[in-house]
Amino acid sequence: MRTLTLISCALLPLALAAQTVQSPDGNLILNFSLSGQGEPTYELSYKGKPVVKPSRLGLELAKDKHASKQMDETSLMQGFVVANTTTSTFDETWQPVWGETKDIRNHYNELAVDLHQPKEQRNMVLRFRVYDDGMGFRYEFPQQKELNYFIIKEERSQFAMAGDHTAWWLPGDYDTQEQETQETKLSGIRSRFNQAVNWSNSSVSVFSPTGVQTSLQMKTDDGLYINLHEAACVDYATMHLDLNDTTMMFESHLTPDATGMKGYMQTPCQSPWRTIIVSDDARDMLASNLILNLNEPCKIEDTSWIHPTKYVGVWWEMIVGKRNWHYTNDFPSVKLDTEYWKTATPHGNHGATTANVKKYIDFAAANGIDQVLVEGWNVGWEDWANMWKRDVFDFVTPYPDFDLDELNRYAQARGVKLMMHHETSSSTQNYERHLDAAFNLMNRYGYDAVKTGYVGDIIPRGDHHYSQSTNNHYQYVIEQAAKHRIMVNAHEATRPTGLCRTWPNMVGNESARGTEYEAFGGSRPDHTLILPFTRLQGGPMDYTPGILETQLNTWSENPNTIHTTLVGQLALYLTMYSPLQMAADLPENYAKYADAFQFIKDVPCDWQDSRYLEAEPARYITVARKDKKSDDWYVGGKCNEDGHKSVLKLDFLDKGRSYEATFYVDAPDASYDKNPKAYKIFKRKVKAGDTLRLTQAPGGGFAVSLKAK
Amino acid sequence: MRTLTLISCALLPLALAAQTVQSPDGNLILNFSLSGQGEPTYELSYKGKPVVKPSRLGLELAKDKHASKQMDETSLMQGFVVANTTTSTFDETWQPVWGETKDIRNHYNELAVDLHQPKEQRNMVLRFRVYDDGMGFRYEFPQQKELNYFIIKEERSQFAMAGDHTAWWLPGDYDTQEQETQETKLSGIRSRFNQAVNWSNSSVSVFSPTGVQTSLQMKTDDGLYINLHEAACVDYATMHLDLNDTTMMFESHLTPDATGMKGYMQTPCQSPWRTIIVSDDARDMLASNLILNLNEPCKIEDTSWIHPTKYVGVWWEMIVGKRNWHYTNDFPSVKLDTEYWKTATPHGNHGATTANVKKYIDFAAANGIDQVLVEGWNVGWEDWANMWKRDVFDFVTPYPDFDLDELNRYAQARGVKLMMHHETSSSTQNYERHLDAAFNLMNRYGYDAVKTGYVGDIIPRGDHHYSQSTNNHYQYVIEQAAKHRIMVNAHEATRPTGLCRTWPNMVGNESARGTEYEAFGGSRPDHTLILPFTRLQGGPMDYTPGILETQLNTWSENPNTIHTTLVGQLALYLTMYSPLQMAADLPENYAKYADAFQFIKDVPCDWQDSRYLEAEPARYITVARKDKKSDDWYVGGKCNEDGHKSVLKLDFLDKGRSYEATFYVDAPDASYDKNPKAYKIFKRKVKAGDTLRLTQAPGGGFAVSLKAK
Repeated sequence: MRTLTLISCALLPLALAAQTVQSPDGNLILNFSLSGQGEPTYELSYKGKPVVKPSRLGLELAKDKHASKQMDETSLMQGFVVANTTTSTFDETWQPVWGETKDIRNHYNELAVDLHQPKEQRNMVLRFRVYDDGMGFRYEFPQQKELNYFIIKEERSQFAMAGDHTAWWLPGDYDTQEQETQETKLSGIRSRFNQAVNWSNSSVSVFSPTGVQTSLQMKTDDGLYINLHEAACVDYATMHLDLNDTTMMFESHLTPDATGMKGYMQTPCQSPWRTIIVSDDARDMLASNLILNLNEPCKIEDTSWIHPTKYVGVWWEMIVGKRNWHYTNDFPSVKLDTEYWKTATPHGNHGATTANVKKYIDFAAANGIDQVLVEGWNVGWEDWANMWKRDVFDFVTPYPDFDLDELNRYAQARGVKLMMHHETSSSTQNYERHLDAAFNLMNRYGYDAVKTGYVGDIIPRGDHHYSQSTNNHYQYVIEQAAKHRIMVNAHEATRPTGLCRTWPNMVGNESARGTEYEAFGGSRPDHTLILPFTRLQGGPMDYTPGILETQLNTWSENPNTIHTTLVGQLALYLTMYSPLQMAADLPENYAKYADAFQFIKDVPCDWQDSRYLEAEPARYITVARKDKKSDDWYVGGKCNEDGHKSVLKLDFLDKGRSYEATFYVDAPDASYDKNPKAYKIFKRKVKAGDTLRLTQAPGGGFAVSLKAK
Repeated sequence: MRTLTLISCALLPLALAAQTVQSPDGNLILNFSLSGQGEPTYELSYKGKPVVKPSRLGLELAKDKHASKQMDETSLMQGFVVANTTTSTFDETWQPVWGETKDIRNHYNELAVDLHQPKEQRNMVLRFRVYDDGMGFRYEFPQQKELNYFIIKEERSQFAMAGDHTAWWLPGDYDTQEQETQETKLSGIRSRFNQAVNWSNSSVSVFSPTGVQTSLQMKTDDGLYINLHEAACVDYATMHLDLNDTTMMFESHLTPDATGMKGYMQTPCQSPWRTIIVSDDARDMLASNLILNLNEPCKIEDTSWIHPTKYVGVWWEMIVGKRNWHYTNDFPSVKLDTEYWKTATPHGNHGATTANVKKYIDFAAANGIDQVLVEGWNVGWEDWANMWKRDVFDFVTPYPDFDLDELNRYAQARGVKLMMHHETSSSTQNYERHLDAAFNLMNRYGYDAVKTGYVGDIIPRGDHHYSQSTNNHYQYVIEQAAKHRIMVNAHEATRPTGLCRTWPNMVGNESARGTEYEAFGGSRPDHTLILPFTRLQGGPMDYTPGILETQLNTWSENPNTIHTTLVGQLALYLTMYSPLQMAADLPENYAKYADAFQFIKDVPCDWQDSRYLEAEPARYITVARKDKKSDDWYVGGKCNEDGHKSVLKLDFLDKGRSYEATFYVDAPDASYDKNPKAYKIFKRKVKAGDTLRLTQAPGGGFAVSLKAK
């Protein structure tokens, strides 16, 4: 059902000093006004409590050397009068191609403020949309005689917090998001900052000791949950937040390009939406669709080729260090345009060999896994990121021991597809040059999904991962891929902002610290209890769960252990929503835990409904999801190092119906650090109204499948 | 005939302190030595006179933030020992696909110095080639364990001049070469610098008040001609020269990219050749093939599709201001991805209309002109350069009044081809995204040549026209074009360095102040007497001569006049060698001077032989050329504002043969400024051994065709 109701569009008095708009349920109240200097100002409250205290909005423009040639320079920060305001209501229910629910309601009250700078004869619109679960606003720049091109020196959107909230934050960085999340008061950011930076990442560019990334999750002392992020970041730089830790005022801080500037704009255009999700119930934060709703509807006409996907891959054994991406040690460095590969001596430990890939294909075919990712299949891995090397990969030339033709034939004969891998080494220039040939090769062999990667510093040199220009590159790849009917899962790309609504072939992103860090030293047990509140607000993450052999030294020389119990890994398939789910461990490890692996085989990755049953950032998340293709439900719970006892009312099940429930639970003595692989599996019949009492071990969780009878 | 004689390859004692190599004729002597600090040093003399006094060679490397990851940082400037030296002789005659002569002799003595830094365990080779007409040297960086990746902060190649020579120079600039050449002593550069800069160019980036461009032509007080330039600049930044005007020492100054760095290198690799052409006869400077010889042989296997081309175009009427490139004035700015073009109102003065182009096609067909260039045919010209606008053109969408299909059909039915135009607006990123589709469109319609343009600041933003990365872009376009069998004539691209030997589909470049400036206010009459000594050393220039209506206000509102006589325009087809020659004036202007236009119809643009008969920089140039396809000769003379009397011995003609000579000469009272269009045409029979006495008017010239009987 798709309804659209434009209830009112009232013209209001000119030069109105202040204007108010409420959420449909009346809990959120937004006030807009102009200061005496004509500065746009807003404030937001929730059930009478301040969420954002009066805060300024505007953009600082840059002087350009071509100033004489029509480039506007006066900032869009003050000297405004209100020319007009318009309020309206919108209520629509739409269906995502894939998602947590099959229907999404988009219901908001809108205030559009037409601002005018009389001296410069320029116009700008501030558009506010107030939902029951938060609000968004953006800047719009209509085409007009006196504002055609301008350069953003900085966006000056303020978010004045009402107190010294608890925050779950990552250090603001132009090039990486792969840090461990910090939990401090806002006033504690500065002193924690330096140790929060992931200095060993392949590309690091911090900018302020109180600069943090979005999505930023906070909790007030009186129990309000507030999340700041953005939606629909298209042809615009990714936003960070810089905190004045005296006033507790955040201000937007955009990612610069190589010139140091933040945005090159041509009207008509607009900023992304700046989003504030707010509730007094943490579960609402996870159930919110505000960011998807603020994105444009799907632009792909025929979406029949886009599908949720479960996959395995030749990957974890390289991450753990047992095999290599590269093929030979013969050369101190390599170039693409050589005959190296024909004569090179293999070092004998290459992961992407024809024989090894066949093992994964057989495993996928035997277990109903859709696809097999293969990393390190193409020449160039001998030396790649962080040499400032532009022509690093060609994305079409396999290593001599990888039989592209035979492997695709072998896979397809078994009902399995290979998944393509394009590590760009952040040389976006090189990737764009090879993109069409690379996608044509995928079409020729029948690949329909690619995992892309952006490790290392961006080339064109001097640019950053999250700048307007690099964001434009990611978007260019998504749109080119759509033309080739290819799904994209971009790693190390900018954090998502809900663009998967518009381009549902963007089925995944990394953009945070993934499971790989468990092999690099570990992530805290609460890490996956924060990500759904932060990183996942903008779109799904290819977190690559399912490491059932949590002790890596049982099969490799890697001394690290996974910071969850084995059952905790199963729970992640539910608590970390994604339409793309990897079973990341090795086939031989799954063979050791075949009964637990059954859950990974069973769990869908597309849903008709989702209910968050319990949630607290960094503490616990419990969710029930209904399979999109059946009446079966799945319930998963995950907790931090403190363990958690869940009491769950099964009131979401169909009334009068019986369900065969299979429980995957931590054993009573299980714990992520001392006894991670102690689990129990048992079956029981349940029905609507029943109550489940489940105990999660420290760093543990549970997973339940409920098959409708 | 192609001969290759490797005469000797002698291994010499290790750690040799000094080494000498001479030119084949013994006139040039190069000395190499190491300083006490292990700094490579060279000096050069000609007939006993110093050309380059002892000068250091080396490269300063940059520290990189990824230093820990194998990036070498110790400069390659000192601490060297000589590990080995090798001398050899090379003598080969090769045939260019097109050129001033059908055979080119490549004869040099070579010295290769293997340098070693014992502390860093690194190796570098300095290779010197000494010709009768000058020398070249370059840095070579073999692949090796301790030198794989490095960043060039600056190349430190010195060229110590022996005196305060007269120089014909352009201000060193990272983004433009379209200045008027200055003639001063070296000591006069600083005081003249500011007025020498073309501040009104669409992209200007000067770096030093004594920084000049190459090719730099000099003349010593005792009559030596010295030219400094470079050859084979591939994946390396374009070099400028920065003068210490106390010591008269030049040092190389490379063009930076957006990071400020000058080069990102991976071994094995090498620098371009740094060239020093020297003679005591100015004619030798023009006849030199040293720069072509220092380039690699042709890399295009089948060159049958590459051909010299004469063309007319829908161009001059826009340059003069009578018509426009753009189509509509409806919008304050335009975007590609809109429906603007379908509904826009034409302003009525668009140049590239179907009707206007047909007029040029008819004219070309009637006069044996090969191709018709059309600028402004594709959407986007409403606003383009210098707005920092990335997605400026798509190179495939014609304006509504340009019938792409019909015009190509119409032209081809008349034995004429259209010539494609791709103005990139310096958005190299955008051009690369559209390149394949643009070339495919050309292939589909039968275009085989494209004029490209790079007006405005480079995008990716912060980069420069002559940086390593942008030079790589130009090279990428050349190589992609070759795959599509397309010839390229790049305007505003970096100055050529002889790469047309390797890639003869690069049939032209602008890279200097072309005829268009005559409509923008004028160029001095001596301008075209300097370009052959400077700009043309690296390859041909699409100068677009042939403006017979030298007074623009006779047909437009442009008040400017051409700074040559009408006959002077004819002479340029000979004195400014190019395989691509435009007849740049309008058909209706050629109709007014049909007898003079006959020379433009007759003159070939490919030659089997060329003889420079008279030459002095900025004063006069006279050259005789023999048609590649017949035994006909053509002689052209051009002089500066002082006029010139030529006495020419026709000793190059076939003995005993009679020639029907047609003379196009200035009338006795002609002058470029007061009486430019006064000319005489007469015929006479001549034979070998005859002497011609021809008087050139101020800013005039002459042109003679000699048809063999």
